[in-house]
Amino acid sequence: MERTITVELGPRSYDVRVAPGLLHAVGQVAAQLDAGAAVVISDSNVAPLYGKGVLDCLAEAGISATLIDFPAGEANKNLSTCGRLFDALFAITPAIDRDCLIVALGGGVTGDLAGLVAAAALRGLRWIQCPTSLLADVDASVGGKTGVDHPAGKNLIGAFHQPSSVLIDPDALKTLGPGEFRDGLSECVKHAIIRDAAKLEFLEDNAAEILSHDGEVMTELIAWNVQIKAGVVSADEKEAGERAHLNFGHTIAHAIEAQVGFGRISHGQAVALGMVAACHMAVLRGFIEQDSAQRVEDLLRQFDLPVSWDGLNADGIWDIMQHDKKARGGEVHMVLPVVIGQVAIFDDVTQEVTSDAVEYLGRS
Amino acid sequence: MERTITVELGPRSYDVRVAPGLLHAVGQVAAQLDAGAAVVISDSNVAPLYGKGVLDCLAEAGISATLIDFPAGEANKNLSTCGRLFDALFAITPAIDRDCLIVALGGGVTGDLAGLVAAAALRGLRWIQCPTSLLADVDASVGGKTGVDHPAGKNLIGAFHQPSSVLIDPDALKTLGPGEFRDGLSECVKHAIIRDAAKLEFLEDNAAEILSHDGEVMTELIAWNVQIKAGVVSADEKEAGERAHLNFGHTIAHAIEAQVGFGRISHGQAVALGMVAACHMAVLRGFIEQDSAQRVEDLLRQFDLPVSWDGLNADGIWDIMQHDKKARGGEVHMVLPVVIGQVAIFDDVTQEVTSDAVEYLGRS
Repeated sequence: MERTITVELGPRSYDVRVAPGLLHAVGQVAAQLDAGAAVVISDSNVAPLYGKGVLDCLAEAGISATLIDFPAGEANKNLSTCGRLFDALFAITPAIDRDCLIVALGGGVTGDLAGLVAAAALRGLRWIQCPTSLLADVDASVGGKTGVDHPAGKNLIGAFHQPSSVLIDPDALKTLGPGEFRDGLSECVKHAIIRDAAKLEFLEDNAAEILSHDGEVMTELIAWNVQIKAGVVSADEKEAGERAHLNFGHTIAHAIEAQVGFGRISHGQAVALGMVAACHMAVLRGFIEQDSAQRVEDLLRQFDLPVSWDGLNADGIWDIMQHDKKARGGEVHMVLPVVIGQVAIFDDVTQEVTSDAVEYLGRS
Repeated sequence: MERTITVELGPRSYDVRVAPGLLHAVGQVAAQLDAGAAVVISDSNVAPLYGKGVLDCLAEAGISATLIDFPAGEANKNLSTCGRLFDALFAITPAIDRDCLIVALGGGVTGDLAGLVAAAALRGLRWIQCPTSLLADVDASVGGKTGVDHPAGKNLIGAFHQPSSVLIDPDALKTLGPGEFRDGLSECVKHAIIRDAAKLEFLEDNAAEILSHDGEVMTELIAWNVQIKAGVVSADEKEAGERAHLNFGHTIAHAIEAQVGFGRISHGQAVALGMVAACHMAVLRGFIEQDSAQRVEDLLRQFDLPVSWDGLNADGIWDIMQHDKKARGGEVHMVLPVVIGQVAIFDDVTQEVTSDAVEYLGRS
């Protein structure tokens, strides 16, 4: 039941493979890539769970491998953790060379950090991504975005550095906390809304199997999400145009995260609220029916994602949106559904409509 | 008397322009690139000399510009200086966006640092290079190599990030110290040896004009050096093959720098010694005549570059060469002239021949 999706990026194309048990294939893939050595980068949560298994299968493939870990948590996604990873990387003996392969083993933070280390070490090492969270499976696993946060904002320092291969093992989700699982589902709902109405139905019809981590359904779920994201990224690698569709729900979500405080609301929860707000705007503008917006809310609720939030300040949200790095020349670009399954970018969203939507999130 | 060399790299192609007074064209070039804002990065030596002039011409072109400086010196080419530059960059108000243009104003260290900041800020900003040292003019100005040092080695952290434009103003060389000027000449000799024997004659014939910074001769000198480097880089952007020819003299030079101690010998001096050693090896192997090697030594001496050095330890040099990051799979790759104007890569250089050459450097 393995599924393979090719991310088409010319000479930088690569395959994303999805199958239960795929973490055991890391050694084989590294050998196919002719890696001279491998360095597995993982965090303090994931390393104890899967680190040894991955090191063992690399050793079986005849590849000398080292594990480097860093303290888990979003707060460590910064330049100084990067610096410590470089210290550990360059302390390895014999010294790594350009044949060294980086293996990013973990969730989104690990992928972002390890990817940036791979992008910058010796001016660019090849890397493979082994995401272990649903959010990383369906989002970070495609597109080659790497980066770290800066006190001035998220992901301000980074690189586009495409991996050589991505191996997604849905079995790894069994050790994932319910909050992180839910965050991944938020992105799945997003993908359905921006590209494929039938997938909203898939989510509705398979909600129970999804919530119980059924292997076959999860493989199917992850594969179609990767397919949607790969299609968008292939069309627009450097985020100049179409890739902005993936920001659906995110413009308001980033502002909500900043206002509520990182740590008090998860990214997936904020995206859920952002999607509810954007759907509400789309209803107000007559693009979609109230029924469609309601269907999105019902599905989010089923996945234990929030559809309302107390205490948001509409003026504050608007101000933060003005500072969002994706706002160019002072204009806010907002992605709204024009029908379930299709979105468009609007640069004429007013403070009034935004306030309406934020106030809608405060309904009881 | 402006000269323009196009570095052919497909969609990443760019022009290197050489002309006295070109620092005053930064504003115009930034405007042509449609820069929304500009951030000039310079060091504490160069900023007081040329910072205001560049800011003024950007302002005249209607581009809001900010100057960020860092303490001059090779020792500051590290990740923590990078971090401080990011802090300053992200403290600018209004916040920079992807239309922001980075201007690297200074020598090689500034180009490497500012280029890396440009490569990583917001996952890649456009940048223009305004080199102000001869070494940066003829070497770092072409190829898009950026990077910082790590205690474990030079340039271990970096990126290939091509500039949008390079503006070389030979007038800036008038404020350059004699040692730095000499270091640049070392690379000019290298370019002549690896690609064009006629250029060795140009250096011999124009030595006096070069040493007195004659504007026309310097423009000509810089232009042909850029042309040679651009040809090599276009053929091999990521340093997989032909670009390794530029390492002529550098394999031994890096080892000499490490043994003598950074700061006790300049890069240009070490490269001069490395070239003398490599030419000596080429004589021993019968590739070139002793006369040719002598001609190289005479020219280096005329430029006040060393052709011998006391106290080098041949075994130590060999050991360091084994650790050089460009050595792959434990083999030392050495670039040797097969005739003046052409080089080839050899992987069969023995410890014995290397010792001979290092001992030759110790002759009195």
